This record gives sequence, C-alpha cells and structure tokens, in this order.
Amino acid sequence: MPRLLVTLPGATLRDAVLALGPLPEGVELVLWDLDSPAPADAIDLVVPPYMGASPKLAALQGVRTRLVQSQSIGYDDVPEHLPPGQVFANAASVHETSTAELTLALVLAAQRGIPGFVRAAEQGRWAPIRAASLADRRVLLVGYGGVGRAIEARLEPFEVEVTRVASRARDDEHGRIHGIDELPSLLPEAEIVIVGVPLTDATTGLVDAEFLAALPDGALVVNIARGRVADTDAILAEAASGRLRFALDVTDPEPLPEHHPLFGLPNVLISPHVGGASTAMMPRMARLVRRQIDRLLAGEQPLNVVLES
Amino acid sequence: MPRLLVTLPGATLRDAVLALGPLPEGVELVLWDLDSPAPADAIDLVVPPYMGASPKLAALQGVRTRLVQSQSIGYDDVPEHLPPGQVFANAASVHETSTAELTLALVLAAQRGIPGFVRAAEQGRWAPIRAASLADRRVLLVGYGGVGRAIEARLEPFEVEVTRVASRARDDEHGRIHGIDELPSLLPEAEIVIVGVPLTDATTGLVDAEFLAALPDGALVVNIARGRVADTDAILAEAASGRLRFALDVTDPEPLPEHHPLFGLPNVLISPHVGGASTAMMPRMARLVRRQIDRLLAGEQPLNVVLES
Repeated sequence: MPRLLVTLPGATLRDAVLALGPLPEGVELVLWDLDSPAPADAIDLVVPPYMGASPKLAALQGVRTRLVQSQSIGYDDVPEHLPPGQVFANAASVHETSTAELTLALVLAAQRGIPGFVRAAEQGRWAPIRAASLADRRVLLVGYGGVGRAIEARLEPFEVEVTRVASRARDDEHGRIHGIDELPSLLPEAEIVIVGVPLTDATTGLVDAEFLAALPDGALVVNIARGRVADTDAILAEAASGRLRFALDVTDPEPLPEHHPLFGLPNVLISPHVGGASTAMMPRMARLVRRQIDRLLAGEQPLNVVLES
Repeated sequence: MPRLLVTLPGATLRDAVLALGPLPEGVELVLWDLDSPAPADAIDLVVPPYMGASPKLAALQGVRTRLVQSQSIGYDDVPEHLPPGQVFANAASVHETSTAELTLALVLAAQRGIPGFVRAAEQGRWAPIRAASLADRRVLLVGYGGVGRAIEARLEPFEVEVTRVASRARDDEHGRIHGIDELPSLLPEAEIVIVGVPLTDATTGLVDAEFLAALPDGALVVNIARGRVADTDAILAEAASGRLRFALDVTDPEPLPEHHPLFGLPNVLISPHVGGASTAMMPRMARLVRRQIDRLLAGEQPLNVVLES
C-alpha cells in the first residue's frame, strides 16, 4: 500500500516531478486528467490540468482528498465548481518568474525600439534611433502581489525609480506601498505604468479613458494582468493619436480579432497572452508538487492553501 | 579670472552639466568642438565631441591641459592622434547602463519571441507560442569589464546560471572568472552567449565558425561588442541553417547593407548599433564631467585616466 497517492494530469508534469530525483518511498504517482472516473476513492494529492480546469473539479465529488493543487494562481471561478470538503492550493511560485520576465521583455523592447528594428529588418533596412532608456524612468507598478514583487526584483538593477500601488496602502521593508485610491496623484508623474492587478469587480475597467488621460505624453502602459482590466476603446484612442505607447500581453477580447486596429499601430506592442507560456513553468510546478508531497508525508500544513470548501 | 576653464563640445552636454546644479565658483564653461582654433592656450578640462573624436584630438597640439575627458569607453585609436603631454580619461561609467540595458532587451526579446509577435501583428494576427524562458538558462558572458559587470547585475534576478569569461582567469567575490582560453570547454554548455569583449587583435574574429560550431543546437549568440569580433559569414551559415539564433547590435560591415541576407532571417534580431544610443548617456556624461571638475578643483587625481601622452 502506498503511503501517499498522488494524481497528476499528464506525463509532462510527471516527468518533470521525476526529473527532480527519486520520490520518497511509498509515494505513488498516477495519471488522472479529471475527465475519466477517479482512480481511487481516496487520493492524497490531486493536481488538475492547467487549462480549463475549474469545471473539471466536479469530478472530485465523492473523492476524499487531502489537497487539490491547482496549476494556476487565479482561482476566481473555482468556488462554484469545487465540491464540498476539499482543501485547495493555488500555484503561487510557479508563474511569477515567467510573467515578470515577459514584462521586462515588453518594457525593454518598447523603450529601446526593438519592434521598429524588426520592422526595418523586414524591409532590409538598418535604421538606428536614439531611444529613451529604461534607466532614469519613473515606473509605476500597479498591483503588488507575487508577480508585482517579481517584476520589482527584475527592475531593481535598471536604475529606475519604482512606485508601488496595491489595493490597500501599507509600508514594507522597501518603503511605501500606495493605495489604489492614490492613482490620480501618481499617474501624472509616471513614465512607465505596469498593470499587474488580479481581475476583480474593483479592477475591471481600471485602465479607462480617465486613467490614461492622467498620464503624461509619451508614457508607456504595460498590461500583463487581464484584458478586461483595461478599456480597449480607451487604449485605441490614446494609441491611434500617438500620445501614449502600449505593450499588451492581454487584450479584451482575446484573442484579438484578425486585423484589429491595435495590430497596426507602431506604438503598440502585442504579445499574445504568453506571460506564463514559457519553459519556466514546468520545473517550478514540479518543485511545488514535490514540496507538497514532502509536507503531506511529514503531516505538515500544505503551502498556498487559498480555499477550503 | 576663472579658477577652472572647461570646454564642452556642444550645448546639449553643457545643459546637462548645468542641470545638475550650480557650478562651483570660478568654473567657466566654454563651447569648443575642436574644429575651430582653441579658445585659450591653457584649458584645464577639454571634452571632445562624442562621435569621430580621435582625429580631432590633433587640435590639442600646443594647448596646455590638465585633462582630456573622452565621451567613449574605447580608445584604441587615440594614441596615434593625441599630441604629447596630455592626460586622457575614458568615459567608463557613462555607457555601461545603456549598453547593458540593450543587451537585456535583445536577450529577453529573442528568448520570449517578441520579433515573431511584431511580425504577426504586422499581418494582423494573434499567434501565441510557448517560448524558452531566460530563467533556468546557462548564460556565458564573454568579456567582463564594466559593461560585462553591468550585464551581470541585470541578469542576476532572472534565475540564470552565469559563467564569466575574461581575457585572463581570476577569482572575485562572485567566484571564478574563466580565461578566454577555456572557451572550448565552456561553449558546449552555453544556451546563451553574450559577447562583450573590447575589439583588439586577440578578439578580432573570435566568434568564428569553430566558436559557433562548439555551441549546442538552438543556442542564442548576442553580440554587443564590435562587429569585427565576429565573422559575418560564419554567423550567416549557422543562422541560415536554423541551428543557432542571433541577436546582433553590431555587424561587420556596418551599417549592414540594404537587403543583406541577415535581415531576412526569423532567428536573427538586429538592433542597428544602438547599445549606447539612449537617453541614459547624457546625464551620466554630465555627472562624470562634474566629478572631474570637483577633482581638478580639489587638486585630486582625475578619474578614469587611461593614457598619458
């Protein structure tokens, strides 16, 4: 009899978990994607699939588990699907690296003119410009959870002045974190705004015409949150006039329809929702699964528990 | 009578110097681009123009100076032009920020597929890919002067393994710096190679067919040094076959001729020698000039002296 039964949704994650070294004795890994019947009445640790997982959580009805370990950070649609009696952990620590890295890729590419160089190369042309550095810029970081902190850590060596905004004002070891109600006084000073808030009722449409109008000419707005955090028409108006610049990993709607006007603007850089889509994910997800296995074996509280249904 | 006569090559640098605050009493700033006769027989501090400066240094013949402050880091062609009796300082601290920042822009853009997203947007298409993160990569940093250290500082939060190579092996507080003779054993392990060596006889053609052949399939080669450090034909062969990827801020020749085959390859990202061409330069050059003024006034040794002719 295994001491710990773990289900994983597929071979890729299983192989990543096994690549970390031999499992402790008594741990059994079984593949289960939650589309078929549960492989046992009692499963210690269930990892659902990454994409489209929430509706599949209904398959946990009648299964006794110790932990359901999501592969996502957001869990806004989980409560309506999770059967009663489950302990649910999110995937904090798994996606921060990739998303923060893509954020810096967008900021640096936009500041230093990389999209223009790519377009010039397509035309076979060498076309230097003198760009605005990232160094010396005032960066406003709106959203200060795990992704926001990971972005801040990567910005730190770039000689920028970072101002941090979260849902509620507070202080930490780096100084002041401003409340989101302070945005009207902060936006006029921002040269780069990075939006990384979770999507909630309060943040839906946060980046609207008024938000954008408060920014100085030439400011760069980076959205790596969710498309619905911003108002697409408001973005389009400020982008088409050339007054502001945008780097968008997320849009509303998504995918952006073919030949949407945002695609055609030289001051809009679009990455098609690939913040988390990198090779950084799987090893970090595997490490989280291993840490949870070790904790369950030791009788310790699992990490990242965000819901108990 | 001024206590210190300083010539600057143009109004932009003068304005940047004055933007740092009032000058100490007795310091006189005069504009002199070295194209006209010297404005005085004795000038304490001469700052030549940024571009094409070396041949103009002949204008210092017969002028008594205390310091000639270049706006460049490299000075390989200075000795042949600098009249005798001059003390010459390079511009270390001025260009590291901008060059290291552009390096990270190239690395991140290439890793996360930004050029492909730009091209897809030109066609009005949303085309996500799952990219190789920068995180978890083995990065080989070839060249470890001021720019190399600035690149390393910016790479540090990105969860990479950096191996450093300089002209001679040594140890520092971060561990081992390998000698350039160790490249044959280091290249096969590198997933990203950043070339930032000065151009010398020893580094001309360093990145040749043999260097590239030693790299594993899919490696990214970033050249932010000088075009002649690499062999263009060797790059073209590895790029056209699709075996390696390249991000080049410098090329040989430069500018790259219109419709050069390197422009047309999806795995080659070209920024047209803009490593230093950002707004980061002027404030840092102004700060260096101010520090030199303060030192000359105090009778201290100037910073960055690299030649005495």
